[in-house]
Amino acid sequence: MNELRKDYLLDEWVIIAAGRGKRPTDFSGKPESGEEMGTCFFCPGNEHLTPPEISRVEEDGNWVIRVFPNKFPAVSKEEGDASGGLRSMQAAYGVHEIVADTNDHAKTLTDMPPDHIVRVFDVYMKRIEALTADERTNYVAVFKNHKKVAGASLSHSHAQIISTPMLPPVVRREVEAVRQYSADHGSCPHCDAWRGELQGDRRIAEDEYTAAFAPYASRFNFEAMVLPKRHVGNFCDLDDGEKASFCTTLKTILARLRDGLGDPGYNYFLHYAPGGDDLHFHVKICPRLSTWAGFEYTTGIIINTMPPETAAAFFRGEEN
Amino acid sequence: MNELRKDYLLDEWVIIAAGRGKRPTDFSGKPESGEEMGTCFFCPGNEHLTPPEISRVEEDGNWVIRVFPNKFPAVSKEEGDASGGLRSMQAAYGVHEIVADTNDHAKTLTDMPPDHIVRVFDVYMKRIEALTADERTNYVAVFKNHKKVAGASLSHSHAQIISTPMLPPVVRREVEAVRQYSADHGSCPHCDAWRGELQGDRRIAEDEYTAAFAPYASRFNFEAMVLPKRHVGNFCDLDDGEKASFCTTLKTILARLRDGLGDPGYNYFLHYAPGGDDLHFHVKICPRLSTWAGFEYTTGIIINTMPPETAAAFFRGEEN
Repeated sequence: MNELRKDYLLDEWVIIAAGRGKRPTDFSGKPESGEEMGTCFFCPGNEHLTPPEISRVEEDGNWVIRVFPNKFPAVSKEEGDASGGLRSMQAAYGVHEIVADTNDHAKTLTDMPPDHIVRVFDVYMKRIEALTADERTNYVAVFKNHKKVAGASLSHSHAQIISTPMLPPVVRREVEAVRQYSADHGSCPHCDAWRGELQGDRRIAEDEYTAAFAPYASRFNFEAMVLPKRHVGNFCDLDDGEKASFCTTLKTILARLRDGLGDPGYNYFLHYAPGGDDLHFHVKICPRLSTWAGFEYTTGIIINTMPPETAAAFFRGEEN
Repeated sequence: MNELRKDYLLDEWVIIAAGRGKRPTDFSGKPESGEEMGTCFFCPGNEHLTPPEISRVEEDGNWVIRVFPNKFPAVSKEEGDASGGLRSMQAAYGVHEIVADTNDHAKTLTDMPPDHIVRVFDVYMKRIEALTADERTNYVAVFKNHKKVAGASLSHSHAQIISTPMLPPVVRREVEAVRQYSADHGSCPHCDAWRGELQGDRRIAEDEYTAAFAPYASRFNFEAMVLPKRHVGNFCDLDDGEKASFCTTLKTILARLRDGLGDPGYNYFLHYAPGGDDLHFHVKICPRLSTWAGFEYTTGIIINTMPPETAAAFFRGEEN
């Protein structure tokens, strides 16, 4: 049983997942070179190499998006004892899934048309819905790690889904802060943020339905935030036009990273309203171009050498 | 003026330090190969290439430890306006210094005898004392980044010191949690932690004065924590025997990393009691053998594939 352990003192949690250390990698611990081992577990024809499929989206009889369990999960449905005090822990109860978002090993999500990206996000939504039906699950994290520097162990384009028995600390703090801000100001902080940022030099892009900007206190070089202008709790609350707009904007940002910065590794992740709470749905894109070091870990303060105003100008195509 | 900005909502802070992006590196963005550019700014003979020296420790007429300002500081003594609300910020007021901890380019702190490490820590203490004399300074972070993967931009062994105008979030939370624990239990959580851990399978080493163990909720592979058994607020509160014991234990752990794991990059950092507060002094050593990814950033929960019990066995020399 993997354990979800709490720091002696702080609200910091760790999943101790020994089995996951054994997972294969086609990066071989070497710098990424495009060379990979012979067999890609996520490619068509190798479906038998993954655990039994959960779902797929087909096109002309072939899958174009495929969901299956992670062979080396960080969480599992095992239950066990919990303890409190200085050494608090509970079972790391949950499900860990992979969403292969294209059947083409040579492509990434950025290469796909916006309507394919909409389908990928619709798959995320179905998995969130299915996994939160388990009453012991309190949250479902959805994220993408692009390249080894961003934590990917296989290069075939995919996202990951991990359900957790608790509302994770970052989500809980965000929900609490939204509640406080709304009580103080009578408005949504994210609605206020995008309205303000689109007026200024952290604006990246906008259309009728979607806003994108470089967050005021960006923690990553070239960090970007994309959200629907309408106050909704999750992607599934958007109509077709809003979804297409959202995914077009997301694709534009990812393509700008690929074409303008030499395709750096990045993480993106969904922030959405967990059941019963209010949180304006948004996606954060965090390129991994710098390294957090001793100062960051001992203080919690991040040093970012790329002002978000400069990052936004880059995304807008205003090279200096 | 570098700005210290707060996240729209969360207690997360960022120093926007554009000038620091221009700093040189002898790693050249390539994997570390031991090859470096011709001139090391931190080597004897090149003292004129650093900003004016702050202090040095000499031996036989040569410096063996040298302190000077960071040429590309993350903070500065400039002051400026502050703002609140959704876009909170203040000037990133402070001082950023380098402690070159050996004059030998080919050595690291791990190669030095314990009494040299004591002198290095004594230098840290003098800098903390000097910098906290500035009433606008509320904390002085002391940390070491070993190798590029851990955030070092130059390979000559050194530590960094950064003073901040605020008590950093991690330190503030730790001090608050200690206060709460002490009120609830009538004891120090770190005293309770080391007493417990030395009895179990997370024990790394101990002698009369010093305890070392792998923290229960280790966030890094092979994370280690070293603390004096006596409840003191900082290294300067130790007597000579305790200092020697502490630095011997620290060296043993660093040497085990170097010799047993191929000298991985690591960060170490001091946690000490800031003025007027209670916090049992300790040092955390965090090897950088894994990568935080989308799950870590979106949830705040870290996946660690190396159980601290296994890490502790490694440090104890019990290979399996």
